[in-house]
Amino acid sequence: MTETTEHGRPGRWRSGAESRERILNAARALFRERGYGSTTVRAVAAEAGVDPAMVFYFFGTKQGLFAAATEMPTHLPGAIESIFTDGLDDLGERLVRTLVENLDASDRAPLVALTRSATTHDESATLLREFIEREITDRLAALVGTPDAVWRAGMVNVQILGITVARYIARIEPIASAPVDELAARFGPLVQHCLTGPPG
Amino acid sequence: MTETTEHGRPGRWRSGAESRERILNAARALFRERGYGSTTVRAVAAEAGVDPAMVFYFFGTKQGLFAAATEMPTHLPGAIESIFTDGLDDLGERLVRTLVENLDASDRAPLVALTRSATTHDESATLLREFIEREITDRLAALVGTPDAVWRAGMVNVQILGITVARYIARIEPIASAPVDELAARFGPLVQHCLTGPPG
Repeated sequence: MTETTEHGRPGRWRSGAESRERILNAARALFRERGYGSTTVRAVAAEAGVDPAMVFYFFGTKQGLFAAATEMPTHLPGAIESIFTDGLDDLGERLVRTLVENLDASDRAPLVALTRSATTHDESATLLREFIEREITDRLAALVGTPDAVWRAGMVNVQILGITVARYIARIEPIASAPVDELAARFGPLVQHCLTGPPG
Repeated sequence: MTETTEHGRPGRWRSGAESRERILNAARALFRERGYGSTTVRAVAAEAGVDPAMVFYFFGTKQGLFAAATEMPTHLPGAIESIFTDGLDDLGERLVRTLVENLDASDRAPLVALTRSATTHDESATLLREFIEREITDRLAALVGTPDAVWRAGMVNVQILGITVARYIARIEPIASAPVDELAARFGPLVQHCLTGPPG
């Protein structure tokens, strides 16, 4: 039997938008089923019936695919990447500035949806947790490299979550209305203190 | 016309549970309509058709009434109260310990419901924000008393929101499973640094 789309065209002629949607559906199913760490781009491509190159074409990286599948701001993974490229010096201020600049520039709706979803569905909370652990905690801890590195990374995660919730969800002043520069000046040193300050 | 309850009994004979429910409904309506700051216990009592003493009997304080109306853990307002009674010394550790001990001991469902509600309804977010500003930010800022006191209080709010979301909503390790003592030892000094450390 020839596979057909809703519009009756054969599958191999389906449009880019249709392929993209199939990839996203496959990604959501596999991330849910296997978790973030065990889901590969290759497996998602196979499940969606497309070439892995098409997944990379649409979403860049596995993180980008995850961001799109969970409706996270899609440029956030790239922004996270840029934080880790210049080592520990000034990482605190770089992290706060990158986080706030990117979330300020993005549509808030997906962030709100992700938070709501994480409070409603254990599956979403698990995925979000695994993403944060792989993409932020583990990489920060590796950079810090001290015996208490996992704790230091955890304390940085608390800053990220706290700033995000205070500015975009609860909208608590003076966090909600402060310019990026002021947030970077206030929270940058605090994040740096978490990373490289004297052990607690 | 004689007011009757669902069970047909005259209003003045209604049970404690019925009165409590009427008070909560009146409180929800007035908090929504007037905000947290402008809603008085007297006005809620009048709206519910009960004596103000009955509101205090059921809910202790306006904060307690707010906690019940928004399904916040009901002992949280009393716990917040206890943080401010011993001045600035060791306030950081006292705050983290009180927050975590109380939330650990409580049913998580209301906290999750409050967070979900704050991401779904602007009204809930506004109320939550006003409660935090009146009951935490303003009081911390008054205690600190420096020109940058409002920022210091805001940074403490970020710690509170971040720890709460990391431990109970996103459940990120090592924050999620750490014993209270370790959290107090790690985050207590950080909160104290926000309050009384060198200006950022």
